Amino acid sequence: VSYLVWGWGATEADAPKPADLEAMAPYVAEVLGFPAQAPELPRQLATGTDPDRARHSLGRSYGDVVRGMRAEIPRLVDRVARPRDEAEITALLEAAAATGAALIPFGGGTSVVGGVTPPPDERPVWSLDLGRLAGVAEVDATSRAARVMAGTTGPALEDALRPQGLTARFFPQSFERSTVGGWVATRAAGHYATRLQHIDDLVESVRAVTSAGVWQSRRLPASGAGPSPDRMLLGSEGTLGVITETWLRLQDRPVHRASTVLLAPSFAVGCEAVRLLVQSGLAPATVRLVDGREAAVSGALPAGAQTTEAVLVVGAESAHAPVDAELAAAVTVLRDAGLREPDGAGEAGRAWGSGFTRAPYLRDSLVLLGVLTETFETATTWDRLDALVASVTAAVEGALARVCGGGRVTCRLTHAYPDGAAPYFTVLAPARRGSEIAQWAEVKAAASGALADAGGTITHHHAVGRDHVPWYAAQRPDVFALALAAVKREIDPAGVLNPGVLLPDPLAPPR
Amino acid sequence: VSYLVWGWGATEADAPKPADLEAMAPYVAEVLGFPAQAPELPRQLATGTDPDRARHSLGRSYGDVVRGMRAEIPRLVDRVARPRDEAEITALLEAAAATGAALIPFGGGTSVVGGVTPPPDERPVWSLDLGRLAGVAEVDATSRAARVMAGTTGPALEDALRPQGLTARFFPQSFERSTVGGWVATRAAGHYATRLQHIDDLVESVRAVTSAGVWQSRRLPASGAGPSPDRMLLGSEGTLGVITETWLRLQDRPVHRASTVLLAPSFAVGCEAVRLLVQSGLAPATVRLVDGREAAVSGALPAGAQTTEAVLVVGAESAHAPVDAELAAAVTVLRDAGLREPDGAGEAGRAWGSGFTRAPYLRDSLVLLGVLTETFETATTWDRLDALVASVTAAVEGALARVCGGGRVTCRLTHAYPDGAAPYFTVLAPARRGSEIAQWAEVKAAASGALADAGGTITHHHAVGRDHVPWYAAQRPDVFALALAAVKREIDPAGVLNPGVLLPDPLAPPR
Repeated sequence: VSYLVWGWGATEADAPKPADLEAMAPYVAEVLGFPAQAPELPRQLATGTDPDRARHSLGRSYGDVVRGMRAEIPRLVDRVARPRDEAEITALLEAAAATGAALIPFGGGTSVVGGVTPPPDERPVWSLDLGRLAGVAEVDATSRAARVMAGTTGPALEDALRPQGLTARFFPQSFERSTVGGWVATRAAGHYATRLQHIDDLVESVRAVTSAGVWQSRRLPASGAGPSPDRMLLGSEGTLGVITETWLRLQDRPVHRASTVLLAPSFAVGCEAVRLLVQSGLAPATVRLVDGREAAVSGALPAGAQTTEAVLVVGAESAHAPVDAELAAAVTVLRDAGLREPDGAGEAGRAWGSGFTRAPYLRDSLVLLGVLTETFETATTWDRLDALVASVTAAVEGALARVCGGGRVTCRLTHAYPDGAAPYFTVLAPARRGSEIAQWAEVKAAASGALADAGGTITHHHAVGRDHVPWYAAQRPDVFALALAAVKREIDPAGVLNPGVLLPDPLAPPR
Repeated sequence: VSYLVWGWGATEADAPKPADLEAMAPYVAEVLGFPAQAPELPRQLATGTDPDRARHSLGRSYGDVVRGMRAEIPRLVDRVARPRDEAEITALLEAAAATGAALIPFGGGTSVVGGVTPPPDERPVWSLDLGRLAGVAEVDATSRAARVMAGTTGPALEDALRPQGLTARFFPQSFERSTVGGWVATRAAGHYATRLQHIDDLVESVRAVTSAGVWQSRRLPASGAGPSPDRMLLGSEGTLGVITETWLRLQDRPVHRASTVLLAPSFAVGCEAVRLLVQSGLAPATVRLVDGREAAVSGALPAGAQTTEAVLVVGAESAHAPVDAELAAAVTVLRDAGLREPDGAGEAGRAWGSGFTRAPYLRDSLVLLGVLTETFETATTWDRLDALVASVTAAVEGALARVCGGGRVTCRLTHAYPDGAAPYFTVLAPARRGSEIAQWAEVKAAASGALADAGGTITHHHAVGRDHVPWYAAQRPDVFALALAAVKREIDPAGVLNPGVLLPDPLAPPR
């Protein structure tokens, strides 16, 4: 069962095959410019190690994949609890407080920022797996909303809504494995570039179990009654309460779709075109600008295009009316901004989507081939975007040269807003086996420092977790940090919930 | 200067004229079904009473207008401070804590829920008028955002943005008098029915002075880094800090407009049509459904329409492209839902807007004519809307019969969301002079209780203030109330800021 501990897939059959790895190796050298290493064989867990505890001790960051693949997990959770109802969660909170244990809410275990990693100290750690609190409990077709249990995965949610012609239309890259409760706790974002990007926009109400009682907000389309209670739980990352269910706003399932691909002479020109597009009032669902070198890796570079060009995938969809006119209007704005449509553009647009949720599987293979492979992301206002992309790219390239002797960083825009955008960076570099974690830590520090200096957020949708805490602490208003710590003391007085994630852990030993 | 103390207008010349009141009286009897009373003469403040202190001791609820008009103000603030910078605000916070004074942030003084009313106890009360912290400090035309000082009024904001072709496009009914800081503090809503309804959506960052230091969030188009700091200040109603400035998202100024009017055979059929419209993915800027009796009062009932019908004003606008096709698509959906376009529909649509910001002036006249005139509003999901409108209407009609011996309550929808809508109720009844405050308190309690029972929020955009506290306390999650109180203790430990608004006042004497 080793692959289930460290890899992305849901079954052992999803694990990379030796033959596939052999076939992939020359491709790495050709496209990435550095050689793959001999495929590494994932290690078995030590005899007697409970794979379920191991699985619950890892997220899915690059470091987690390496640690899991090597069966070198720094700390195992002591127990995996799978409560069947809220009363059992309350009992777990009480037992943890009485025992001095830490409790880590666990949805799909897909955190890429150490969000489910046990704290590095001596206290007992229990993983609180929400897998038994799953399913769509209720659908209000009139208001188009559904009451969804926290442990529901993306596919299970959509399967339950499809027969009614409804969809949550929320597709983070982790869609297959992550859960609705995790989306809410981490302020996840879906793959649509415009409108309703974050789960925040879809949440009608939230229910959570805390040490101070059950937190249940009223179902409302909007309200002006005090600060939003839901917005305090959104992004709380399991530190304030255990989210058990949420009412999500739904949409009719789209049936009309159209998409195309355009080429920009440079990434910066592409960014400017996207700005003009979204500021023109058009909001095609898909607006994804990928730099040419990254497009070449993912196979999205149209024939005849240069890697100095940037590829823009633009797509519209609707449940109610054809979208060809909307797409044509977008293309007009983009052409006026200096972009061109290559031959076969429509076909290339359709090809993009299928690769999106496959990327985490590909990463598993690259790790076995000795490739350091990770992503990081941010958001910033348009006035700062070009400078941010340039300075972050330079900082990461410098760090890669020092740390890995080479490698590459590429960029795409994943989300576009009238006042700014979310750039997403992919790093691929030759790893030094056994030193990957330290290598990435140095590159990540360079990236995060450059992001902060350039005015970006430390995360647009990957959350804070344990890994982003130093930069998050510098970014958030100091007074807000005091406020949040006061909330934590009030409703989790024993400091049971996910210590060291998001907020500094008052019980952590000095490092 | 008496009118400036109690009335809506900015100058004494805006005060209702005796001749206008005489002319209006027969119209009251004819349209409202009960007689106007002899026009009342507003009283002068007692000799030696500072009109500036009096003005700062009143908001603009019906009760406030009555109290001001009679010069019967229960409690005057002891001092009006007009800080010129943040250092002076910090000094005021410190001085208030040292003195045991309460500090009430004051923007335009347009609260209709007692948001600027002094607490009913013995401590000194200082009004903190933000009028000197006004103006647009900076415009980022690339990102389309502006740094706006808290004391800036709606017209001043738009005047500053107009030369650059930009607009905040945020028009609450109080637009002429209220301030940007007040909008943020109270989660105000503008008059557009769809998209970007609340100021929440326009806020890119907020800056506030608190007893624990300056709270400044980073300018970001979006972020997933922890709970949103801005969303904790939005709706805090001056209880956590003094908002001094905010970056607001802007838009290009619309130049294309089209609107029309349709008639629904009943208000419920109109609601259902609005639901189908917004759920179809169309989002015309204006979607305002008014019941026929209310439309008759405001002159918006088209010729030949019955008061049993409901009037739907629908309008689209754009900075970038003609909107006739969008309006036509909306009309198609609405016709399919059973609505009809009367003769002269386009003309009637254009007439609506101008009356909107005049309503508060009209109220001043009605008060002088002995008419009890007030509004209240809520939001709820579509599945509950019809029942809410019916039960609230019945409860208020019952209370009016008991308390006023008659009068009427009418309803409109002001904001439409895919999952629900915001109904807005107007009450007009014969007042018993001298007993207006008690009369309204009883009607308001009946309305608020019925709203709560029907699942609505106690306010969609009027805020909580002092008047809504009991119902707000019942509505918000209990654990969230604990959390908010903990924040208050942490960053306003002396309880200086707006005690008794939003949160219970721990220093309040028992009542």
